[in-house]
Amino acid sequence: MQDDLTRQLAFLTEIDALKSVVRQSLIADRSRRENSAEHSWHLAMFALVLAPQALDKGKIVSMLLIHDIVEIDVGDAPIHGVHDKAALELAEAAAAKRLFGLLPEGQATHLLALWQEFEAAATPEAKFAKSLDRLQPLMLNTLTGGGTWTESNVSEQQVYERYGPAIQDGSPSLWARAREMVRQHFARSGA
Amino acid sequence: MQDDLTRQLAFLTEIDALKSVVRQSLIADRSRRENSAEHSWHLAMFALVLAPQALDKGKIVSMLLIHDIVEIDVGDAPIHGVHDKAALELAEAAAAKRLFGLLPEGQATHLLALWQEFEAAATPEAKFAKSLDRLQPLMLNTLTGGGTWTESNVSEQQVYERYGPAIQDGSPSLWARAREMVRQHFARSGA
Repeated sequence: MQDDLTRQLAFLTEIDALKSVVRQSLIADRSRRENSAEHSWHLAMFALVLAPQALDKGKIVSMLLIHDIVEIDVGDAPIHGVHDKAALELAEAAAAKRLFGLLPEGQATHLLALWQEFEAAATPEAKFAKSLDRLQPLMLNTLTGGGTWTESNVSEQQVYERYGPAIQDGSPSLWARAREMVRQHFARSGA
Repeated sequence: MQDDLTRQLAFLTEIDALKSVVRQSLIADRSRRENSAEHSWHLAMFALVLAPQALDKGKIVSMLLIHDIVEIDVGDAPIHGVHDKAALELAEAAAAKRLFGLLPEGQATHLLALWQEFEAAATPEAKFAKSLDRLQPLMLNTLTGGGTWTESNVSEQQVYERYGPAIQDGSPSLWARAREMVRQHFARSGA
């Protein structure tokens, strides 16, 4: 049996690989695509700044720090792509079990439950975290002249349909602002 | 006057630039250098997993998420480089004021104070955060066959001197483990 610290350091070493999972979104200066580690940092900062007083901010930050770790095993599934949803969910659940399972048992159980809470999007904290996970790439797309929308030929209406429900469910006020950003973007681009 | 949400989103947009601040450390697969945004994510994960029960974990995580944001204006100052410490501190203080000052006043004051607490390294939370900020690159160096130590011709003794005090001050048990990693690395490399 390895001691707790050895297991914790093994986990922290393994998750370095999230820095090599490349997402579809461009970073704001358009120089390259974003990776999932820096995306997770950016989302945690969104939570630090935007989480409502009534919610458990620490829980939201923790959720967002770990939410994409499963991509080390299964890769990023772009929002505008076509996926076998059931197969993806099974693969992600197996990845969560393997990756969080590197930790000492108590921590593994805790972080696995936190990841499952995020995925289920049923609690106010998980809903808010999910809304940020949609808001951040929406902002990057408006900042980069269309980003993944232009690349994937996504219409204004499709943006409302793909981003709206999750953002509105977590935060109606953020969705009101985000919807306005999208409207202005498509008005500018004339698309 | 801009409303709070406008200021918050302006700050969250501005800090995207931390993804383009390149550090000296290689990521674990040695494919490229690490940037300060993904470094901050990795450190927040270290805190999530390693912070002792007695400390305020949320505060440590928040500190580590924001600790390098000043580098957007002043760049990364590598540990093995030569710096004018007083000039660097002045430039970082000005950067913190400008960047956190993008936020609504209450949040700006709060995050500026949190960054100053980290820099001062006087509270147990700041000391622990500082210890992780040394431990993580130490681990990356041992994982990448020497990394910045090899590049900068840093001796085993210099590693103990440059990393030891900060790690030991925050966590004697982490330093005991880290020192052993360093010893084994130099024994392997025969340096």
